[in-house]
Amino acid sequence: MPQQRPKVVIIGGGFGGIDAAKTLARAPVDVILVDKQNHHCFQPLLYQVATAALSPADVAWPIRHILRKQENATVLMAEVRGIDTEKRVVQADSVTLPYDYLVVATGAMHSYFGHGEWAEVAPGLKRIEDATRIRRRILIAFERAELAAGESERRRLLTFVIVGGGATGVEMAGAIAEVARQSLAIDFRHIDPKTARIVLVEAGPRVMPAFPQKLSDYVVRTLTKKGVEVMTATRVVRCDAHGVDLEHGRIDAATIIWAAGVMASPAASWLNAGRDRAGRVKVGPDLSVPGHPQVFVIGDTADVVDQPHIPGIAPAAKQMGRYVGRLIAARVAGRPAPPPFHYRHLGDLATVGRQAAVVKLGWLELTGFIGWVFWSVVHIYFLIGVRDRFIVAFTWFWDYVTFQRGARLITQVPPPDQP
Amino acid sequence: MPQQRPKVVIIGGGFGGIDAAKTLARAPVDVILVDKQNHHCFQPLLYQVATAALSPADVAWPIRHILRKQENATVLMAEVRGIDTEKRVVQADSVTLPYDYLVVATGAMHSYFGHGEWAEVAPGLKRIEDATRIRRRILIAFERAELAAGESERRRLLTFVIVGGGATGVEMAGAIAEVARQSLAIDFRHIDPKTARIVLVEAGPRVMPAFPQKLSDYVVRTLTKKGVEVMTATRVVRCDAHGVDLEHGRIDAATIIWAAGVMASPAASWLNAGRDRAGRVKVGPDLSVPGHPQVFVIGDTADVVDQPHIPGIAPAAKQMGRYVGRLIAARVAGRPAPPPFHYRHLGDLATVGRQAAVVKLGWLELTGFIGWVFWSVVHIYFLIGVRDRFIVAFTWFWDYVTFQRGARLITQVPPPDQP
Repeated sequence: MPQQRPKVVIIGGGFGGIDAAKTLARAPVDVILVDKQNHHCFQPLLYQVATAALSPADVAWPIRHILRKQENATVLMAEVRGIDTEKRVVQADSVTLPYDYLVVATGAMHSYFGHGEWAEVAPGLKRIEDATRIRRRILIAFERAELAAGESERRRLLTFVIVGGGATGVEMAGAIAEVARQSLAIDFRHIDPKTARIVLVEAGPRVMPAFPQKLSDYVVRTLTKKGVEVMTATRVVRCDAHGVDLEHGRIDAATIIWAAGVMASPAASWLNAGRDRAGRVKVGPDLSVPGHPQVFVIGDTADVVDQPHIPGIAPAAKQMGRYVGRLIAARVAGRPAPPPFHYRHLGDLATVGRQAAVVKLGWLELTGFIGWVFWSVVHIYFLIGVRDRFIVAFTWFWDYVTFQRGARLITQVPPPDQP
Repeated sequence: MPQQRPKVVIIGGGFGGIDAAKTLARAPVDVILVDKQNHHCFQPLLYQVATAALSPADVAWPIRHILRKQENATVLMAEVRGIDTEKRVVQADSVTLPYDYLVVATGAMHSYFGHGEWAEVAPGLKRIEDATRIRRRILIAFERAELAAGESERRRLLTFVIVGGGATGVEMAGAIAEVARQSLAIDFRHIDPKTARIVLVEAGPRVMPAFPQKLSDYVVRTLTKKGVEVMTATRVVRCDAHGVDLEHGRIDAATIIWAAGVMASPAASWLNAGRDRAGRVKVGPDLSVPGHPQVFVIGDTADVVDQPHIPGIAPAAKQMGRYVGRLIAARVAGRPAPPPFHYRHLGDLATVGRQAAVVKLGWLELTGFIGWVFWSVVHIYFLIGVRDRFIVAFTWFWDYVTFQRGARLITQVPPPDQP
């Protein structure tokens, strides 16, 4: 009887899962990657889908297409229902997947700090569907304002509140300001989109806390120039369908976007493992779950011992994915395990809009046009496939020259009384 | 008091409505175009969205963007609820629009020949949402086949039935065959997408009846070479969630696509006007409704007296839109009305897939590679905007070289037991 090759099941086709699978390309194992979506989503550019600059297909690719040439990899589209660490099987819809090694890379979702009911009125931005939903809301708000009977209702429809002053919140605020002041400027007859009010609310003392103070200040100056009101040290106490209650006052707004907090996926309860306050699974120095040396957790779902401050960004997930891939390959080959995982921070970058971005890579700090070009090149480089690199580069060039946004579609229009 | 300019209300932002509005650009009138969607959809390429070659934003544009520079035009996104021809007002959601001239250009929907219940299992292709729904079904069928336990279920999941052998049906069948045999060929491990069964069912004696017999024969030969089974003179008697009953036998199929019949929009009942069997409003030689010289019906919604065989294609709608625009401009200026509308048929063209199309323009008949290049150039030319012309041309070129399709996203995944 031929010997069975060890089975490596990877749950999740994000940055961590894909890199783990690729690292195992030449190992004598069978890789099974399972995800409830058929596509890998390039989350750093999702806000551009939400603000009608790019189409969903420009920032997402079928996972099985990414791995089509890796002969030891099988991709299954199914939703994981549970993990049995005793029997070593993953239950995914109707399929039972036995594993010798398991990599859990299921990422994070939004956290509303115990107010799950805000999710409906204040959507966050994690998946393609979130992005098209937010795009629909933003565009419908302008359409309804054009039809609105009273001035106060029109003001409410033209008010956009973004909760959370990290990279996603800043990018969304800058992009919505450009949609209103540039792309839509001459499209309406009854309203002036330039009068839209865009408010960025941050609970902490400053926006973009991952950056030095100087760069935070630059972001605030740039946003203000674009017409965004930045409110720091301001806590949101309630979101409802008509606006946001702050500690001191209320903003009536038809569109609220949540970029404030994340919560790990429910992997910890599947594994019945220890977790931190954000729901992340506590893992050892080799990213394995204590007591289960063949089960690894990576990316936004992992809380690595002694390295509590690994940020929830793509490079961190990719580094963990590659580490676990190398470690499993070593074990299968009977080679010594690599040294403990060590996160290497490459830097931070975020764009505030047209000709404005902040970049910090070690000692290198860039802002303005140069920062923006650098940001653009990096993001084009990390896109998957020559085709999308080309399409995205062309789209950005075109939009830069014309001040336009090409993906301004409202699909699945809700009834008039719904958001 | 300044004299009010005559108000021209246009219902529908399809080919007819847009061209009517544009033709009135220099007339001393106020044009109000109302549509329940925010976008104009280029229906001739919608099948490419349904088969993952193009993104929705490549074939649809915000109507208000198309008319943004036409100062006498206002665009409203609202759904028309009724027309009062006595008071001369259109009711659209919460807005009441008085008119001096009314142009109804509301197009057509699918007709299931009295079996509306088939719509759920056999979607048609008219709107962007239809296209993304069909794309989702096609891609999910392959994903579920990869997971399927039994061989008969796998066969059913890999069977695609297209009902209707006109241009849309032929284009869909050819495109699905290429998805299965080329784009997906090496992406799966448990199934071979090349074994997918694609059946085109036509009730009449031949496919593409608008074309000469010779071109119909070419289409059948080409489809057969691509692996499509073509069944002519075959009537569908029932569609359900598991397949299609034909007069003589049954095909088990997870995916059914309806391209068989259209029915005019409910304009006739709004107007309380005479209609033909397809629900189209009977209009006079100047496209006005008998008894209402200021109300016009154009495009797929119009049955023009003495010209019963105007096809439901974009050039016909555009010609009617321009005619009505000129007629209204003449009336407002007190000039004599133009002669009765006369439809001028420019030709027919349809693509069967890669390097294969049929073209008939007067005496000119093209097939094969030359026909396909001609078809591509014509469609690129009629797209709106330089940007999309460029993006679509690049995408086609890229897909041609690589045999790929870039927009293979499944969004809004239904539960496992639903289509």
